[in-house]
Amino acid sequence: MISFGVIGAGRIGKVHAKTIAANPKAKLAYVADAVPKAAEDLARQYGAKVASVDEIMNARDTDAVLIGSPTGFHAEQIQAASNAGKAIMCEKPVSLSVKAIHETLKVVEKNKSMLMIGFNRRFDPNFAGLEARIRKGAIGDVELITVISRDPGPPPVEYVKGSGGLFRDMMIHDFDMARFLMGEEFVVVQALGASLVDHLIGEAGDVDTAAVQMQTKSGRIAVITNSRRATYGYDQRMEVHGAKGMLTAGNIRNTTVELHNGEGSTEDPLLNFFTERYGAAYANELNTFIAAIDSGKKDPRPNGFDGLQAQILADAATESWKTGKPVKV
Amino acid sequence: MISFGVIGAGRIGKVHAKTIAANPKAKLAYVADAVPKAAEDLARQYGAKVASVDEIMNARDTDAVLIGSPTGFHAEQIQAASNAGKAIMCEKPVSLSVKAIHETLKVVEKNKSMLMIGFNRRFDPNFAGLEARIRKGAIGDVELITVISRDPGPPPVEYVKGSGGLFRDMMIHDFDMARFLMGEEFVVVQALGASLVDHLIGEAGDVDTAAVQMQTKSGRIAVITNSRRATYGYDQRMEVHGAKGMLTAGNIRNTTVELHNGEGSTEDPLLNFFTERYGAAYANELNTFIAAIDSGKKDPRPNGFDGLQAQILADAATESWKTGKPVKV
Amino acid sequence: MISFGVIGAGRIGKVHAKTIAANPKAKLAYVADAVPKAAEDLARQYGAKVASVDEIMNARDTDAVLIGSPTGFHAEQIQAASNAGKAIMCEKPVSLSVKAIHETLKVVEKNKSMLMIGFNRRFDPNFAGLEARIRKGAIGDVELITVISRDPGPPPVEYVKGSGGLFRDMMIHDFDMARFLMGEEFVVVQALGASLVDHLIGEAGDVDTAAVQMQTKSGRIAVITNSRRATYGYDQRMEVHGAKGMLTAGNIRNTTVELHNGEGSTEDPLLNFFTERYGAAYANELNTFIAAIDSGKKDPRPNGFDGLQAQILADAATESWKTGKPVKV
Amino acid sequence: MISFGVIGAGRIGKVHAKTIAANPKAKLAYVADAVPKAAEDLARQYGAKVASVDEIMNARDTDAVLIGSPTGFHAEQIQAASNAGKAIMCEKPVSLSVKAIHETLKVVEKNKSMLMIGFNRRFDPNFAGLEARIRKGAIGDVELITVISRDPGPPPVEYVKGSGGLFRDMMIHDFDMARFLMGEEFVVVQALGASLVDHLIGEAGDVDTAAVQMQTKSGRIAVITNSRRATYGYDQRMEVHGAKGMLTAGNIRNTTVELHNGEGSTEDPLLNFFTERYGAAYANELNTFIAAIDSGKKDPRPNGFDGLQAQILADAATESWKTGKPVKV
Repeated sequence: MISFGVIGAGRIGKVHAKTIAANPKAKLAYVADAVPKAAEDLARQYGAKVASVDEIMNARDTDAVLIGSPTGFHAEQIQAASNAGKAIMCEKPVSLSVKAIHETLKVVEKNKSMLMIGFNRRFDPNFAGLEARIRKGAIGDVELITVISRDPGPPPVEYVKGSGGLFRDMMIHDFDMARFLMGEEFVVVQALGASLVDHLIGEAGDVDTAAVQMQTKSGRIAVITNSRRATYGYDQRMEVHGAKGMLTAGNIRNTTVELHNGEGSTEDPLLNFFTERYGAAYANELNTFIAAIDSGKKDPRPNGFDGLQAQILADAATESWKTGKPVKV
Repeated sequence: MISFGVIGAGRIGKVHAKTIAANPKAKLAYVADAVPKAAEDLARQYGAKVASVDEIMNARDTDAVLIGSPTGFHAEQIQAASNAGKAIMCEKPVSLSVKAIHETLKVVEKNKSMLMIGFNRRFDPNFAGLEARIRKGAIGDVELITVISRDPGPPPVEYVKGSGGLFRDMMIHDFDMARFLMGEEFVVVQALGASLVDHLIGEAGDVDTAAVQMQTKSGRIAVITNSRRATYGYDQRMEVHGAKGMLTAGNIRNTTVELHNGEGSTEDPLLNFFTERYGAAYANELNTFIAAIDSGKKDPRPNGFDGLQAQILADAATESWKTGKPVKV
Repeated sequence: MISFGVIGAGRIGKVHAKTIAANPKAKLAYVADAVPKAAEDLARQYGAKVASVDEIMNARDTDAVLIGSPTGFHAEQIQAASNAGKAIMCEKPVSLSVKAIHETLKVVEKNKSMLMIGFNRRFDPNFAGLEARIRKGAIGDVELITVISRDPGPPPVEYVKGSGGLFRDMMIHDFDMARFLMGEEFVVVQALGASLVDHLIGEAGDVDTAAVQMQTKSGRIAVITNSRRATYGYDQRMEVHGAKGMLTAGNIRNTTVELHNGEGSTEDPLLNFFTERYGAAYANELNTFIAAIDSGKKDPRPNGFDGLQAQILADAATESWKTGKPVKV
Repeated sequence: MISFGVIGAGRIGKVHAKTIAANPKAKLAYVADAVPKAAEDLARQYGAKVASVDEIMNARDTDAVLIGSPTGFHAEQIQAASNAGKAIMCEKPVSLSVKAIHETLKVVEKNKSMLMIGFNRRFDPNFAGLEARIRKGAIGDVELITVISRDPGPPPVEYVKGSGGLFRDMMIHDFDMARFLMGEEFVVVQALGASLVDHLIGEAGDVDTAAVQMQTKSGRIAVITNSRRATYGYDQRMEVHGAKGMLTAGNIRNTTVELHNGEGSTEDPLLNFFTERYGAAYANELNTFIAAIDSGKKDPRPNGFDGLQAQILADAATESWKTGKPVKV
């Protein structure tokens, strides 16, 4: 039985706690949160104990630490957990500072810790299925990837200010997916951005609408577009064009009901946001982590290197957007 | 050059005249219509002459007669054209009387005339493609056919009164398609009907909503549903279920444009009615007739026998609806 | 906390036990099964006790009985549970004998027991959503319902022999859905059937391919087609045509991935069978039952009357198929 | 009756000649082609005369000139036709040289000639419908446009060598559509390109796979991707995301037939290439030109300025691809 300490009892901590409780090989032992009541509520629901972060790190009966704290704590908590000999699952990003990521990965490497980063979309059954078919050769060599990702609505400006910006906060998922699907690193990044959804986001020095195109050394191309607002729901699509065909993965709707009348034929809106759209992905992700620990698998992906590379692309895109120039990585 | 006399310069006569004019192997020589101006207008448009029906039958420079007159004239005009040695293309139905059809087919057979009946839907590229795949074995043995056919709106009650009723006027197309797709004759017919769209249709002794299920000797089943009104356009769908799979053919919309917003995702309405939906089918049909004459092909389908069989099914369905009992054919 | 005794630890018993365990207002107290190991395994998994059916009926700490035993036991177990004052959730059908259903419902009525019948499809989010929109008037008066239901593959002939036949075993779900969507009782039933999938099914006196059309007193029509085999998966579709439009609910696929190449564009196969396709429906159904008990709601639907009516239609269809005549109900 | 001289009797000349012949307000008077037999065949088909380019320009009985000659002749022929007082419809591009376009437009302006450029896609019923809905406000302000355009297969390398390169030969249509849909000029262009389909194209100094992102002064973004090969057919899609929703226009398939079996559900491949896909667009385009002449409309769009702007974007993209830097326009 793999015993978990969960740091962070917010929205994502709750999602993960549920998966731990439902996995017969895992149990929730400790919950830490800066807000005592949040920790208590979550702990009580699953028969776990409330603890401080330090107590979790030092607990002998904890095999794995799940880090769902605010981004600013990720790097130090990964290091602490690594030094304490725990397996680590950490929400993205490792850090907004590439330098801090490098330092963190050194610690992880030194300790030979298992570290998985929470790029949940890799575990969405649709996108995972798409990637599996690429690897099986269904479309031959990959040539052109299109990632479309749009949130249903913009976050509060206060959130934006501390987020590192759209490229690091939102598009970082798409950078990871582009790497995941492409199977080759990108060497150049070109970005465009604008504040079209909420001018307050622009005034805070960020964008809410953005496009990035990237190229690998061998010439393959990925195009990503993001918007902080889609009136029709959480728009999450991928399309991979290759020498022998194209694979696409589309959106998911509330139901399959369609209304047909003089206006035309109308399908339901899309699933609203990430906890609904990626519910299965979050569970698959954590179950993969648990299975990796259980089977002694050394390096479940996405790992710290994947976290680093996505951050480097996000930094490059941010720089490209600010300078108006392509950035080599 | 195959020279045509067209009898009937109404909506369907115009559709066919256009196809004749565009076919390099055919020309429009004569047009007859009870309304002189209608005949004149159509004749002038294509450089043809106005003539009486008798003149067309007797014209030496006419190889083929296209009969688009009111249903009540079809049988006698087919017989006249057959006796005059013309190739004959006649709009459905041959007659509302099965007895009259038998008599007509005897004349056609005696003269060894070429006779094609205007079941245009067999020539729709979608349904023709579906049938071709059945014959190639794409789904193995056919087991269950579903035909859905709904007009955008009911015809005037005056039209209904002279139409022979929904089963003979509207569903006759679907009886032909069911036979075409099944490739085996039906031996039993069960019908239900109601007047739900327009109570005047019911008062005129007809139905506007109907379902028919039929079975072949070997047990295969076809299900047809009709409505005289579909708020979303002209609904024309077929589905054939077989031992190895299913083939479907769906509706066609005005454009591929979709609007996505908080209401959901809305596609365009369907093509409105038969001249739009079956434009290609009408042209393919008549070009097939012209090619059959040109190549000396003896028996282009659908022929008089197909016209007879569809009428027998329509009569059976009408009787089943009226008596509430299954009818053997 | 509503305490459950589950009778039957087979496939469907396991599905329901999981829902009970996950519902914070319910707990699994007892499991009974003719196969001791099956009962033990299921009981252990959720911390329940193994018991005999009699013990469950007499247990003071049991509020509700979930009957997932073989069909032959349903009627007597409902009566026993009713006489013991339990709330009862019973898998369909109540009985293959309409007479036995009447007797059972008398007992239920006398005791004023809460009885819900497991027509799970009413709780599928897609079909439930469709029905909700009908009731809200989205398509005006319902005129024509089409239900398509095809299993991925035929059951063993041994199962067929004890099943009561396709109309009572398989199509009974569709009879219930047709009633649910129509909102008016059917008064005439016409059935066709054949053994096209597996001749052993025919030799056992049953059919594997069937069509039924039914009409209400006011003339509305429902058409149901069933096949025991669909090579493309578990095909479950509904279409309701009304005065103001049409509502459809379609199939669900394994993923949204599509492959596009010279063969065309290929979507994933359908979810394979009922535990996958109706996973959410089973949970919603049982949670509705639990909520009904919890809130003191007297008559959650589908109730015993719904079970009776579906059985009457299934009997009528069986008779119509055997006699070749319409059956009035 | 508007009398046409057609210069160029190749594939596109034939398409246009057919439209002229079918338009009751126009007639084909003259055909010119460097290959006498090509001119003779086309002229004979529609009862026109063969003539030299000069003869067409000087013919008193010619109102309009349709220029479908090789690109290198467009500019001088537009100027000649303008000086001769003809209305001019010219295939894209006006010239591969922006300087030559400027000179040509000066002549056109001086003579106040009517000049329309053959960006046929604006007249595709799907894309035209999409644009019309944008202008009606269906999605509010446009924020992000995605244009996907992929040919079924690469052209011969010899063609590529004289084409001006992918950005000027193929993507120029997409530059025009991006301008058409956006309604605001682009001020910066970033391009990536690679030779992934056919290495001979790379050796000839061109690309076969490309991505471009562009931004307007107000920050709106367009993303275009091109490939010279799509195994699944001619892929032509547009998507416009705005403040109030998204409009999409998709591909068109050979038929609506779908095959459902254990492999999944397979739709037909796409219409193969531009003469099929844009058949209606070519006709609508030329009929718009004829109507503009007939009604005395001064400036039908797309006009010479549209031709110029598209060429400027194509040049900018070519430069951006070659230098690896963004280009301001």
